[in-house]
Amino acid sequence: MTSIPVTVAEYVVNRLADLGIDRVFGVPGDYSFPFDDAIEACERLQWIVCANELNAAYAADGYARINGVSILSTTYGVGELSALNGVMGARAQRLPVFHIVGAPSTQIQRQGLITHHTLGDGVFNNFKAASEAACCVSANLTPDNVIEEMERVIREALRLSAPAYISVPMDLGKMPIIGKPVKGVSLSQIKRTHSDPAVLAAAIDFVINKLQASKNTIALPTQFVTNYGLTTALLNFLNTSNLPFATTPMDKGVLSESHPGYLGIYSGMGSSPVDLKATVEGAELVLDIGGVVFEDFNTTFWTDNIASTKLIVLGDQFVRMGSTIFTGVTLGDMLEGLTKRVSARPNLSVKSSQSVMPIVGADTDPTSSDNFYPRLQSLLKSGDVLVVETGTCIMYTTPMLLPDGVGFQTQTLWGSIGWATPAAEGVCMANKNGRTILVTGDGSHQLTANEIGVMGRYGIKPIIFVLNNNIFGVENVLSEIGPSYDELAKWKYAQIPAAMGCDTWFAARVSTVAELDAAIKKANTYDGASYIEVMIPASESQPIPLNVQNQIYKTNIPGKS
Amino acid sequence: MTSIPVTVAEYVVNRLADLGIDRVFGVPGDYSFPFDDAIEACERLQWIVCANELNAAYAADGYARINGVSILSTTYGVGELSALNGVMGARAQRLPVFHIVGAPSTQIQRQGLITHHTLGDGVFNNFKAASEAACCVSANLTPDNVIEEMERVIREALRLSAPAYISVPMDLGKMPIIGKPVKGVSLSQIKRTHSDPAVLAAAIDFVINKLQASKNTIALPTQFVTNYGLTTALLNFLNTSNLPFATTPMDKGVLSESHPGYLGIYSGMGSSPVDLKATVEGAELVLDIGGVVFEDFNTTFWTDNIASTKLIVLGDQFVRMGSTIFTGVTLGDMLEGLTKRVSARPNLSVKSSQSVMPIVGADTDPTSSDNFYPRLQSLLKSGDVLVVETGTCIMYTTPMLLPDGVGFQTQTLWGSIGWATPAAEGVCMANKNGRTILVTGDGSHQLTANEIGVMGRYGIKPIIFVLNNNIFGVENVLSEIGPSYDELAKWKYAQIPAAMGCDTWFAARVSTVAELDAAIKKANTYDGASYIEVMIPASESQPIPLNVQNQIYKTNIPGKS
Repeated sequence: MTSIPVTVAEYVVNRLADLGIDRVFGVPGDYSFPFDDAIEACERLQWIVCANELNAAYAADGYARINGVSILSTTYGVGELSALNGVMGARAQRLPVFHIVGAPSTQIQRQGLITHHTLGDGVFNNFKAASEAACCVSANLTPDNVIEEMERVIREALRLSAPAYISVPMDLGKMPIIGKPVKGVSLSQIKRTHSDPAVLAAAIDFVINKLQASKNTIALPTQFVTNYGLTTALLNFLNTSNLPFATTPMDKGVLSESHPGYLGIYSGMGSSPVDLKATVEGAELVLDIGGVVFEDFNTTFWTDNIASTKLIVLGDQFVRMGSTIFTGVTLGDMLEGLTKRVSARPNLSVKSSQSVMPIVGADTDPTSSDNFYPRLQSLLKSGDVLVVETGTCIMYTTPMLLPDGVGFQTQTLWGSIGWATPAAEGVCMANKNGRTILVTGDGSHQLTANEIGVMGRYGIKPIIFVLNNNIFGVENVLSEIGPSYDELAKWKYAQIPAAMGCDTWFAARVSTVAELDAAIKKANTYDGASYIEVMIPASESQPIPLNVQNQIYKTNIPGKS
Repeated sequence: MTSIPVTVAEYVVNRLADLGIDRVFGVPGDYSFPFDDAIEACERLQWIVCANELNAAYAADGYARINGVSILSTTYGVGELSALNGVMGARAQRLPVFHIVGAPSTQIQRQGLITHHTLGDGVFNNFKAASEAACCVSANLTPDNVIEEMERVIREALRLSAPAYISVPMDLGKMPIIGKPVKGVSLSQIKRTHSDPAVLAAAIDFVINKLQASKNTIALPTQFVTNYGLTTALLNFLNTSNLPFATTPMDKGVLSESHPGYLGIYSGMGSSPVDLKATVEGAELVLDIGGVVFEDFNTTFWTDNIASTKLIVLGDQFVRMGSTIFTGVTLGDMLEGLTKRVSARPNLSVKSSQSVMPIVGADTDPTSSDNFYPRLQSLLKSGDVLVVETGTCIMYTTPMLLPDGVGFQTQTLWGSIGWATPAAEGVCMANKNGRTILVTGDGSHQLTANEIGVMGRYGIKPIIFVLNNNIFGVENVLSEIGPSYDELAKWKYAQIPAAMGCDTWFAARVSTVAELDAAIKKANTYDGASYIEVMIPASESQPIPLNVQNQIYKTNIPGKS
């Protein structure tokens, strides 16, 4: 550590910084001053004061996606509850976000005083259950327990890959710790889960036998592999086994889409290429690596149909095929063990029928999804991370073939609109290898656009595309009647960066292909952040007819029971 | 009802509209489409699509302060959790906000399908406890129970004056109701609480005896009286009894500050006038009407000191003096009963030493708190409601004498920064009698400024003052070291309305007294909304020294145990 930890709050932030964290996202607040001051005093941590707590939670989510772990700092009651949806999203997406919260002092609590940020009832645990619901572990720290509790909290948050809730009353946060401080190591040096050796050997035998017996196996690796720090282990296994693989939309970008084994996006009837549905479901064996989420948006309204008799799931801490289950075996150990023993399939380079989209549209054509997305694709290069909002934009980017080395981040499961803008901030601050490119719809952007000012303040340089069709496009698609409640306030998005103090940003509204091309060219060379508002006809987002609605939401799903 | 209720969702929104509600604040979302569509179809209700769910909750809070009740509509998981802090604030401030939430269909739940806005675990009650924690009553509706349950929910939310949580799965929301619908009445026709006649008679005797025995009684009426719909009853009692009264900061504006009995603001050592502390605490008897909140911000760090032996509390549903407690007596019945029997004190017109602040500052002087607040005061006129954000602005407005008929709204207890901007939207939409004037600091405004676009979309005409000192002023006051985390992104606030589509708004940044005067003059006559950014020197907000900090937060509070 660069400074000797003295107080409880200082110890907490330094112990977390040991994991390899260099930013803290949050909003300062009076009960949290001990944490706030400790963050400011820690040379390894930069305070990122977000526009509000929900934005901070989304940013911490984005940062953890790239960095593995993150810190969120909010105050008691008002702050932690505002952040809750964002932390819950991190739980859904299995990201270890350490949520630190300062509470009223023990003197105030002991005297039962009525104090601000409470219900005025002298009760001080009214909000704990709500905050804890988004976390897999929680701790109320004291000078006595802080050293041991921090080890437990870190161990559990990493083991379960989920957020942790860390609370300390204001007075205790300023007291010196008792005991011998632990010098932590960085995340990459931590083995987060451990296997039972005997079960592991049996599970490896089982899977190897199945792989050897199958002439046609397809792997479905998931984004969780990245969360678990096992990307290299996954790549080693796939390179050794020569198994072809596909990903669901939620897992897109976990491995390079230029990999010779890459088949495309498996998403039931929404697969890309479309015949990949038949390919995957017709395989003799499907190897789910990390736990595919068979979810309405991820498999196009549950139109996945992989027989459980041919599906092996390599879970984070189990292996399952039908009713055969091995528990106490970890994904990391499984991948390592399988890599040692798997026989390479014939070195078959599969041919994804996904391809680079041709650039279409004449200079004077109005901008549209048809001419925007190919240009987005051509902008991408190795090191970039593409952050895509929940909405119609995800429908267009999922089938897009990513160049080698381009990351892809979405919130397909939790699907909280507004996530992507602050998440892109977090991604950008964690991504040291290239650019961060955000694609968001206007409806989603309005929820969290106040984070633009924060990006400007801290000098990060994302490239932001706001697609302006003046409606909640995806809701309009999902609703029956195309109602007026899907319309939006008519922002002039391109004016937002300047209004929020981003003086050096390049900002433009484009409504023709020529303007779009010029703006992308500028963004590609500009040494600063870019913010491009792209006009898209609202007519692109038409409601799904009622009979399809009924089929999706009102009746039993075929094959699901 | 203007339309025959058919479905569960339609019945819910129409039954709530019966209470006298004409707006619904929220964000539409797919599980909530039955509610969303029912709101759109109900001629009595206007959909107010807010920038995000927390803003919607704050707006519903503001609307309920004026209208008595309000509706908040969000979707499952992501939406309801985003709103939670705002609903919890309404609970702290005792406002009946009806929070309606659509959930995944029973088919999805029964089949345990993995669906968006969940943790991917097939569990559908992960978020219910959190949402319910902000409410005093909740109901899961079905076609069978909706009629009876809505009566129970409305009765309880009004009885306890707190938010209610109403949830219905998507498919059930679209089904026809079973049973005979109830035609509701407006809030003003509902008696929300009832007394036990015998206890009531005894409690009235008790209080009347105390009042008659006291030569010097001071009343402390609270804002809760307004929430309970008892403002007229309160005024009748004070006019009949001729009791002088003071209010705490949280209760400011509950009655006209031009009332002959008005003494000023009681706030412990922060009272205005300062000697009001001695006046109140030296009275022979203090009559707390509605339940004064003796809270750190409300009584200046618990420097109130009213002996319990001289304090009668007329609670919402109890009367208490020391260890003498009457339960089952309601505030409305008490006020009515006391008014009938109380002897008028000599018709003593007290003289508040609060007064109209002199207008100070030369034209070329830089704007500052000293020259801003007197001008704010002179702008106010009967019918206006002043909405003041938690922050340094509340310290300046609390002692300001309000002209007759001017309302005053703050969130002193819950104190969630960001509240005031969306709350002003809700207040403005409910206030049919005059203007709504918002005073907010820049730090708070950044949290929720995206609501400005919503105000523009729906054509409301608030007058907004954003005080730009480029820091979280009140946090800087409360922290020890004046840290950099209290600094803000440097927005150009006056550009915000145009960027968010408020084309017809008057917007200006003012940094001299002459510019401020010109802007106020314009706002006073402009037929449209006004947004005035007032530059304030950051040097006005100096940290409280550490020794005072320690006294406030680290040691036992004298007289409190």
